[in-house]
Amino acid sequence: MNYCSDCGAPVTLRVPEGDNRERHVCSRCGTIHYQNPKMVVGCIPEWEDKILLCRRAIQPRLGLWTLPAGFMERGETTRDGAARETLEEANARVQVGRLYGLFNLPHIDQVYMLFRARLLDLDFSPGEESLEVRLFAEREIPWDELAFHPIRETLRLFFRDRLTGDREMRSGDIVRDTGDEPRLQITIHDEPPFYGAGE
Amino acid sequence: MNYCSDCGAPVTLRVPEGDNRERHVCSRCGTIHYQNPKMVVGCIPEWEDKILLCRRAIQPRLGLWTLPAGFMERGETTRDGAARETLEEANARVQVGRLYGLFNLPHIDQVYMLFRARLLDLDFSPGEESLEVRLFAEREIPWDELAFHPIRETLRLFFRDRLTGDREMRSGDIVRDTGDEPRLQITIHDEPPFYGAGE
Repeated sequence: MNYCSDCGAPVTLRVPEGDNRERHVCSRCGTIHYQNPKMVVGCIPEWEDKILLCRRAIQPRLGLWTLPAGFMERGETTRDGAARETLEEANARVQVGRLYGLFNLPHIDQVYMLFRARLLDLDFSPGEESLEVRLFAEREIPWDELAFHPIRETLRLFFRDRLTGDREMRSGDIVRDTGDEPRLQITIHDEPPFYGAGE
Repeated sequence: MNYCSDCGAPVTLRVPEGDNRERHVCSRCGTIHYQNPKMVVGCIPEWEDKILLCRRAIQPRLGLWTLPAGFMERGETTRDGAARETLEEANARVQVGRLYGLFNLPHIDQVYMLFRARLLDLDFSPGEESLEVRLFAEREIPWDELAFHPIRETLRLFFRDRLTGDREMRSGDIVRDTGDEPRLQITIHDEPPFYGAGE
Protein backbone atom coordinates (compact mmCIF):
# COMPACT_ATOMS: atom_id res chain seq x y z
CA MET A 1 0.00 0.00 0.00
CA ASN A 2 1.50 3.33 -1.16
CA TYR A 3 -1.42 5.75 -1.52
CA CYS A 4 -4.58 6.61 0.42
CA SER A 5 -7.59 4.97 -1.25
CA ASP A 6 -9.81 7.81 0.03
CA CYS A 7 -7.88 10.93 -1.08
CA GLY A 8 -4.93 9.68 -3.20
CA ALA A 9 -2.13 11.19 -1.07
CA PRO A 10 0.89 9.07 -0.03
CA VAL A 11 0.54 6.94 3.11
CA THR A 12 3.18 6.40 5.78
CA LEU A 13 3.64 3.36 8.01
CA ARG A 14 3.33 4.35 11.67
CA VAL A 15 1.69 3.41 14.98
CA PRO A 16 -1.46 5.55 15.41
CA GLU A 17 -2.19 7.05 18.84
CA GLY A 18 -3.83 4.49 21.13
CA ASP A 19 -2.79 1.61 18.86
CA ASN A 20 0.09 -0.82 19.28
CA ARG A 21 1.00 -1.77 15.72
CA GLU A 22 2.07 -0.07 12.52
CA ARG A 23 -0.71 0.90 10.11
CA HIS A 24 -0.77 2.70 6.79
CA VAL A 25 -1.88 6.24 7.68
CA CYS A 26 -2.67 8.95 5.12
CA SER A 27 -0.25 11.91 5.22
CA ARG A 28 -3.03 14.30 4.13
CA CYS A 29 -6.47 13.19 5.42
CA GLY A 30 -5.23 11.05 8.31
CA THR A 31 -7.32 7.99 7.42
CA ILE A 32 -5.96 4.81 9.01
CA HIS A 33 -6.03 1.89 6.57
CA TYR A 34 -6.42 -1.38 8.48
CA GLN A 35 -5.55 -4.67 6.81
CA ASN A 36 -7.11 -7.88 8.11
CA PRO A 37 -7.09 -11.61 7.34
CA LYS A 38 -9.55 -13.04 4.83
CA MET A 39 -11.93 -15.96 5.08
CA VAL A 40 -11.96 -18.81 2.57
CA VAL A 41 -15.34 -20.56 2.77
CA GLY A 42 -16.30 -23.85 1.15
CA CYS A 43 -18.16 -27.15 1.32
CA ILE A 44 -17.53 -30.86 1.68
CA PRO A 45 -20.39 -31.88 -0.67
CA GLU A 46 -21.56 -35.44 0.06
CA TRP A 47 -23.60 -37.84 -2.03
CA GLU A 48 -24.04 -41.24 -0.37
CA ASP A 49 -20.47 -42.27 0.58
CA LYS A 50 -18.84 -40.02 -2.01
CA ILE A 51 -17.38 -36.49 -1.93
CA LEU A 52 -17.43 -33.93 -4.74
CA LEU A 53 -14.06 -32.51 -5.80
CA CYS A 54 -13.14 -29.98 -8.50
CA ARG A 55 -10.01 -29.94 -10.65
CA ARG A 56 -8.70 -26.39 -10.88
CA ALA A 57 -8.71 -24.59 -14.24
CA ILE A 58 -6.93 -21.55 -12.79
CA GLN A 59 -3.74 -20.67 -10.95
CA PRO A 60 -2.57 -21.30 -8.31
CA ARG A 61 -2.39 -25.12 -8.42
CA LEU A 62 -3.91 -25.43 -11.88
CA GLY A 63 -4.79 -29.06 -12.63
CA LEU A 64 -4.93 -30.14 -8.97
CA TRP A 65 -8.07 -31.21 -7.05
CA THR A 66 -9.84 -29.27 -4.32
CA LEU A 67 -13.09 -28.93 -2.43
CA PRO A 68 -15.24 -26.07 -3.79
CA ALA A 69 -14.11 -23.02 -1.79
CA GLY A 70 -13.11 -19.41 -2.23
CA PHE A 71 -12.92 -15.96 -0.67
CA MET A 72 -16.01 -14.91 1.25
CA GLU A 73 -17.64 -11.85 -0.35
CA ARG A 74 -19.20 -8.79 1.23
CA GLY A 75 -22.91 -8.98 2.03
CA GLU A 76 -23.07 -12.74 2.50
CA THR A 77 -22.89 -15.17 5.42
CA THR A 78 -20.24 -17.89 5.71
CA ARG A 79 -22.80 -20.55 4.65
CA ASP A 80 -24.06 -18.39 1.77
CA GLY A 81 -20.47 -18.08 0.62
CA ALA A 82 -19.82 -21.82 0.87
CA ALA A 83 -22.97 -22.56 -1.20
CA ARG A 84 -22.10 -19.85 -3.77
CA GLU A 85 -18.60 -21.22 -4.30
CA THR A 86 -20.03 -24.71 -4.81
CA LEU A 87 -22.46 -23.37 -7.40
CA GLU A 88 -19.77 -21.33 -9.18
CA GLU A 89 -17.07 -24.01 -9.27
CA ALA A 90 -19.18 -27.14 -9.74
CA ASN A 91 -22.63 -25.89 -10.86
CA ALA A 92 -23.83 -27.90 -7.86
CA ARG A 93 -26.63 -27.17 -5.42
CA VAL A 94 -26.09 -28.09 -1.77
CA GLN A 95 -27.76 -27.81 1.59
CA VAL A 96 -25.03 -26.44 3.83
CA GLY A 97 -24.71 -28.04 7.28
CA ARG A 98 -22.33 -27.64 10.18
CA LEU A 99 -18.90 -26.12 10.24
CA TYR A 100 -16.45 -29.01 10.13
CA GLY A 101 -12.95 -27.68 9.43
CA LEU A 102 -11.47 -24.40 10.70
CA PHE A 103 -7.88 -23.81 9.62
CA ASN A 104 -5.64 -20.82 10.28
CA LEU A 105 -2.91 -19.92 7.79
CA PRO A 106 -1.35 -16.88 9.48
CA HIS A 107 1.61 -16.61 7.05
CA ILE A 108 -0.82 -15.81 4.22
CA ASP A 109 -3.51 -14.19 6.42
CA GLN A 110 -6.25 -16.66 5.56
CA VAL A 111 -8.78 -18.59 7.66
CA TYR A 112 -10.42 -21.59 5.97
CA MET A 113 -13.95 -22.54 7.02
CA LEU A 114 -15.21 -25.76 5.45
CA PHE A 115 -18.82 -26.83 6.02
CA ARG A 116 -20.44 -30.22 5.73
CA ALA A 117 -22.98 -30.19 2.91
CA ARG A 118 -25.50 -32.45 1.20
CA LEU A 119 -25.50 -32.48 -2.58
CA LEU A 120 -29.13 -32.00 -3.65
CA ASP A 121 -28.89 -33.68 -7.08
CA LEU A 122 -26.35 -35.14 -9.50
CA ASP A 123 -26.74 -32.39 -12.09
CA PHE A 124 -23.26 -30.89 -11.59
CA SER A 125 -20.61 -29.88 -14.13
CA PRO A 126 -17.37 -27.87 -14.26
CA GLY A 127 -17.81 -24.13 -13.62
CA GLU A 128 -15.51 -21.58 -15.28
CA GLU A 129 -12.76 -22.13 -12.72
CA SER A 130 -12.84 -25.95 -12.96
CA LEU A 131 -11.55 -28.39 -15.59
CA GLU A 132 -13.44 -31.36 -14.20
CA VAL A 133 -15.84 -32.14 -11.35
CA ARG A 134 -16.52 -35.61 -10.00
CA LEU A 135 -17.53 -37.73 -7.03
CA PHE A 136 -14.84 -39.68 -5.20
CA ALA A 137 -15.16 -42.59 -2.78
CA GLU A 138 -12.53 -42.50 -0.02
CA ARG A 139 -10.27 -45.03 -1.77
CA GLU A 140 -10.36 -42.92 -4.96
CA ILE A 141 -9.29 -39.58 -3.42
CA PRO A 142 -6.22 -38.29 -5.35
CA TRP A 143 -4.18 -37.60 -2.19
CA ASP A 144 -1.05 -36.69 -4.16
CA GLU A 145 -2.91 -34.27 -6.41
CA LEU A 146 -4.74 -32.13 -3.84
CA ALA A 147 -4.33 -28.38 -4.29
CA PHE A 148 -4.16 -26.95 -0.75
CA HIS A 149 -3.03 -28.11 2.71
CA PRO A 150 -6.26 -27.17 4.55
CA ILE A 151 -8.23 -29.21 1.99
CA ARG A 152 -5.99 -32.24 2.48
CA GLU A 153 -6.17 -32.00 6.28
CA THR A 154 -9.94 -31.53 6.23
CA LEU A 155 -10.45 -34.60 4.01
CA ARG A 156 -8.03 -36.72 6.06
CA LEU A 157 -9.85 -35.84 9.32
CA PHE A 158 -13.26 -36.15 7.68
CA PHE A 159 -12.71 -39.76 6.63
CA ARG A 160 -11.15 -40.63 10.00
CA ASP A 161 -14.11 -39.14 11.87
CA ARG A 162 -16.58 -40.85 9.54
CA LEU A 163 -15.04 -44.18 10.48
CA THR A 164 -15.21 -43.56 14.23
CA GLY A 165 -18.52 -41.68 14.15
CA ASP A 166 -16.94 -38.66 15.82
CA ARG A 167 -19.09 -35.58 15.28
CA GLU A 168 -16.79 -32.80 16.52
CA MET A 169 -15.61 -29.99 14.35
CA ARG A 170 -11.84 -29.93 13.71
CA SER A 171 -9.45 -27.05 13.76
CA GLY A 172 -5.78 -26.49 13.23
CA ASP A 173 -2.96 -24.16 12.30
CA ILE A 174 -0.85 -24.39 9.18
CA VAL A 175 2.16 -22.16 9.74
CA ARG A 176 5.26 -21.49 7.67
CA ASP A 177 8.48 -22.05 9.61
CA THR A 178 10.85 -19.16 9.32
CA GLY A 179 14.08 -21.12 9.56
CA ASP A 180 16.83 -21.57 6.94
CA GLU A 181 14.60 -23.97 5.05
CA PRO A 182 11.05 -22.58 5.28
CA ARG A 183 8.48 -25.36 5.44
CA LEU A 184 4.94 -25.76 6.72
CA GLN A 185 4.17 -26.89 10.27
CA ILE A 186 0.71 -28.46 10.56
CA THR A 187 -0.87 -28.58 14.03
CA ILE A 188 -4.28 -30.17 14.55
CA HIS A 189 -5.78 -28.93 17.80
CA ASP A 190 -6.50 -31.56 20.36
CA GLU A 191 -9.74 -29.90 21.35
CA PRO A 192 -9.22 -28.85 24.96
CA PRO A 193 -11.95 -29.50 27.50
CA PHE A 194 -15.18 -27.62 27.13
CA TYR A 195 -14.41 -25.61 30.29
CA GLY A 196 -16.91 -24.46 32.78
CA ALA A 197 -18.43 -25.26 36.11
CA GLY A 198 -18.49 -28.92 37.01
CA GLU A 199 -16.19 -30.08 34.21
CA MET B 1 -12.57 3.76 -2.32
CA ASN B 2 -11.58 6.48 -4.80
CA TYR B 3 -7.90 5.93 -5.57
CA CYS B 4 -5.60 2.98 -6.26
CA SER B 5 -3.59 2.19 -3.12
CA ASP B 6 -0.75 0.86 -5.32
CA CYS B 7 -0.23 3.72 -7.82
CA GLY B 8 -2.51 6.57 -6.66
CA ALA B 9 -4.59 6.84 -9.89
CA PRO B 10 -8.41 6.99 -9.72
CA VAL B 11 -10.29 3.66 -9.58
CA THR B 12 -13.50 2.82 -11.40
CA LEU B 13 -16.20 0.38 -10.31
CA ARG B 14 -16.62 -2.40 -12.91
CA VAL B 15 -16.92 -6.16 -13.34
CA PRO B 16 -13.45 -7.53 -14.23
CA GLU B 17 -13.18 -10.16 -16.96
CA GLY B 18 -14.01 -13.63 -15.62
CA ASP B 19 -15.64 -12.15 -12.48
CA ASN B 20 -19.33 -11.67 -11.71
CA ARG B 21 -19.37 -8.67 -9.41
CA GLU B 22 -18.27 -5.06 -9.43
CA ARG B 23 -14.79 -4.34 -8.05
CA HIS B 24 -12.71 -1.21 -7.73
CA VAL B 25 -10.25 -1.43 -10.64
CA CYS B 26 -7.35 0.99 -11.17
CA SER B 27 -7.67 3.10 -14.34
CA ARG B 28 -3.89 3.19 -14.76
CA CYS B 29 -2.21 0.03 -13.45
CA GLY B 30 -5.27 -2.26 -13.67
CA THR B 31 -4.97 -3.60 -10.10
CA ILE B 32 -8.26 -5.10 -8.86
CA HIS B 33 -8.97 -4.08 -5.26
CA TYR B 34 -11.04 -6.79 -3.56
CA GLN B 35 -12.92 -6.01 -0.37
CA ASN B 36 -13.84 -8.81 2.01
CA PRO B 37 -15.60 -9.33 5.36
CA LYS B 38 -13.62 -9.09 8.57
CA MET B 39 -13.41 -11.42 11.53
CA VAL B 40 -14.09 -10.31 15.09
CA VAL B 41 -12.47 -12.81 17.49
CA GLY B 42 -12.96 -13.03 21.23
CA CYS B 43 -13.32 -15.14 24.36
CA ILE B 44 -15.92 -16.20 26.90
CA PRO B 45 -13.48 -16.19 29.85
CA GLU B 46 -14.72 -18.46 32.66
CA TRP B 47 -13.74 -18.59 36.32
CA GLU B 48 -15.74 -21.17 38.27
CA ASP B 49 -19.39 -20.32 37.42
CA LYS B 50 -18.62 -16.72 36.47
CA ILE B 51 -17.88 -14.95 33.17
CA LEU B 52 -15.56 -11.99 32.62
CA LEU B 53 -17.09 -8.93 30.95
CA CYS B 54 -15.57 -5.55 30.05
CA ARG B 55 -17.28 -2.15 30.10
CA ARG B 56 -16.33 -0.20 27.00
CA ALA B 57 -14.25 2.97 27.33
CA ILE B 58 -14.49 3.68 23.59
CA GLN B 59 -17.11 4.21 20.91
CA PRO B 60 -19.23 2.57 19.65
CA ARG B 61 -21.37 1.63 22.66
CA LEU B 62 -19.22 3.44 25.21
CA GLY B 63 -20.24 2.46 28.74
CA LEU B 64 -21.88 -0.83 27.74
CA TRP B 65 -20.66 -4.33 28.62
CA THR B 66 -19.12 -6.86 26.26
CA LEU B 67 -17.00 -10.00 26.05
CA PRO B 68 -13.37 -9.23 25.20
CA ALA B 69 -13.27 -9.30 21.37
CA GLY B 70 -11.97 -7.31 18.44
CA PHE B 71 -10.77 -7.43 14.85
CA MET B 72 -8.43 -10.27 14.03
CA GLU B 73 -5.01 -8.96 12.98
CA ARG B 74 -2.65 -10.13 10.24
CA GLY B 75 -0.13 -12.81 11.19
CA GLU B 76 -2.17 -14.39 13.97
CA THR B 77 -4.57 -17.33 14.30
CA THR B 78 -8.18 -16.95 15.43
CA ARG B 79 -7.26 -18.29 18.91
CA ASP B 80 -4.20 -16.04 19.13
CA GLY B 81 -6.46 -13.11 18.31
CA ALA B 82 -9.04 -14.08 20.92
CA ALA B 83 -6.30 -14.35 23.60
CA ARG B 84 -4.70 -11.06 22.51
CA GLU B 85 -8.00 -9.16 22.74
CA THR B 86 -8.57 -10.58 26.23
CA LEU B 87 -5.12 -9.43 27.29
CA GLU B 88 -5.56 -5.97 25.73
CA GLU B 89 -9.06 -5.25 27.03
CA ALA B 90 -8.93 -6.96 30.42
CA ASN B 91 -5.21 -7.54 31.15
CA ALA B 92 -6.33 -11.15 31.58
CA ARG B 93 -4.56 -14.35 30.66
CA VAL B 94 -6.65 -17.23 29.29
CA GLN B 95 -6.29 -20.70 27.88
CA VAL B 96 -8.41 -20.58 24.73
CA GLY B 97 -10.64 -23.60 24.10
CA ARG B 98 -13.22 -24.52 21.50
CA LEU B 99 -15.09 -22.27 19.14
CA TYR B 100 -18.52 -21.75 20.69
CA GLY B 101 -20.32 -18.92 18.86
CA LEU B 102 -20.12 -18.15 15.12
CA PHE B 103 -22.25 -15.19 14.05
CA ASN B 104 -22.61 -13.61 10.62
CA LEU B 105 -23.45 -9.90 10.30
CA PRO B 106 -23.58 -9.50 6.52
CA HIS B 107 -24.95 -5.93 6.61
CA ILE B 108 -21.71 -4.75 8.24
CA ASP B 109 -19.46 -7.44 6.71
CA GLN B 110 -18.37 -8.97 9.98
CA VAL B 111 -18.12 -12.55 11.24
CA TYR B 112 -17.89 -13.00 15.01
CA MET B 113 -16.00 -16.01 16.38
CA LEU B 114 -16.23 -16.42 20.16
CA PHE B 115 -14.17 -19.11 21.88
CA ARG B 116 -14.64 -20.75 25.24
CA ALA B 117 -11.72 -19.88 27.50
CA ARG B 118 -10.42 -20.57 30.98
CA LEU B 119 -9.20 -17.58 32.98
CA LEU B 120 -5.77 -18.54 34.36
CA ASP B 121 -5.75 -16.20 37.37
CA LEU B 122 -7.72 -13.37 38.97
CA ASP B 123 -5.09 -10.72 38.28
CA PHE B 124 -7.16 -8.78 35.69
CA SER B 125 -7.86 -5.05 35.33
CA PRO B 126 -9.27 -2.62 32.76
CA GLY B 127 -7.15 -2.26 29.61
CA GLU B 128 -7.01 1.04 27.71
CA GLU B 129 -10.29 0.33 25.93
CA SER B 130 -12.19 -0.65 29.09
CA LEU B 131 -13.65 1.39 31.96
CA GLU B 132 -14.23 -1.61 34.20
CA VAL B 133 -13.69 -5.38 34.11
CA ARG B 134 -15.46 -7.85 36.38
CA LEU B 135 -16.77 -11.37 36.84
CA PHE B 136 -20.51 -11.97 36.56
CA ALA B 137 -22.60 -14.91 37.69
CA GLU B 138 -25.50 -15.66 35.33
CA ARG B 139 -28.04 -13.82 37.50
CA GLU B 140 -25.81 -10.72 37.53
CA ILE B 141 -25.36 -10.35 33.74
CA PRO B 142 -26.42 -6.80 32.72
CA TRP B 143 -28.67 -8.01 29.87
CA ASP B 144 -29.99 -4.51 29.14
CA GLU B 145 -26.52 -2.99 29.01
CA LEU B 146 -24.77 -5.37 26.59
CA ALA B 147 -22.96 -3.68 23.72
CA PHE B 148 -23.47 -5.95 20.70
CA HIS B 149 -26.08 -8.43 19.45
CA PRO B 150 -23.66 -11.34 18.81
CA ILE B 151 -22.39 -10.97 22.38
CA ARG B 152 -25.91 -11.06 23.80
CA GLU B 153 -26.89 -14.10 21.70
CA THR B 154 -23.68 -15.93 22.58
CA LEU B 155 -24.19 -15.36 26.32
CA ARG B 156 -27.87 -16.34 26.13
CA LEU B 157 -27.06 -19.61 24.34
CA PHE B 158 -24.03 -20.24 26.55
CA PHE B 159 -26.07 -20.19 29.78
CA ARG B 160 -28.83 -22.28 28.20
CA ASP B 161 -26.33 -24.90 27.03
CA ARG B 162 -24.56 -24.90 30.39
CA LEU B 163 -27.86 -25.81 32.03
CA THR B 164 -28.60 -28.69 29.63
CA GLY B 165 -24.98 -29.82 29.27
CA ASP B 166 -25.15 -29.41 25.49
CA ARG B 167 -21.64 -29.21 24.05
CA GLU B 168 -22.36 -28.12 20.46
CA MET B 169 -21.07 -24.92 18.99
CA ARG B 170 -23.76 -22.38 18.05
CA SER B 171 -24.11 -20.27 14.96
CA GLY B 172 -26.51 -17.72 13.62
CA ASP B 173 -27.16 -14.79 11.33
CA ILE B 174 -27.89 -11.24 12.45
CA VAL B 175 -29.24 -9.41 9.41
CA ARG B 176 -30.62 -5.92 8.94
CA ASP B 177 -34.07 -5.92 7.34
CA THR B 178 -34.26 -3.55 4.41
CA GLY B 179 -37.92 -2.58 4.80
CA ASP B 180 -39.43 0.81 5.62
CA GLU B 181 -38.37 0.40 9.21
CA PRO B 182 -34.96 -1.26 9.15
CA ARG B 183 -34.48 -3.58 12.11
CA LEU B 184 -32.35 -6.61 12.92
CA GLN B 185 -33.51 -10.17 12.22
CA ILE B 186 -31.75 -12.72 14.42
CA THR B 187 -31.71 -16.35 13.23
CA ILE B 188 -30.07 -19.06 15.32
CA HIS B 189 -29.29 -22.08 13.14
CA ASP B 190 -30.96 -25.28 14.13
CA GLU B 191 -27.89 -27.28 13.37
CA PRO B 192 -28.91 -29.54 10.49
CA PRO B 193 -27.95 -33.19 10.58
CA PHE B 194 -24.31 -34.10 10.34
CA TYR B 195 -24.87 -35.54 6.83
CA GLY B 196 -23.05 -38.49 5.44
CA ALA B 197 -23.33 -42.19 4.86
CA GLY B 198 -25.44 -44.02 7.38
CA GLU B 199 -27.00 -40.93 8.94
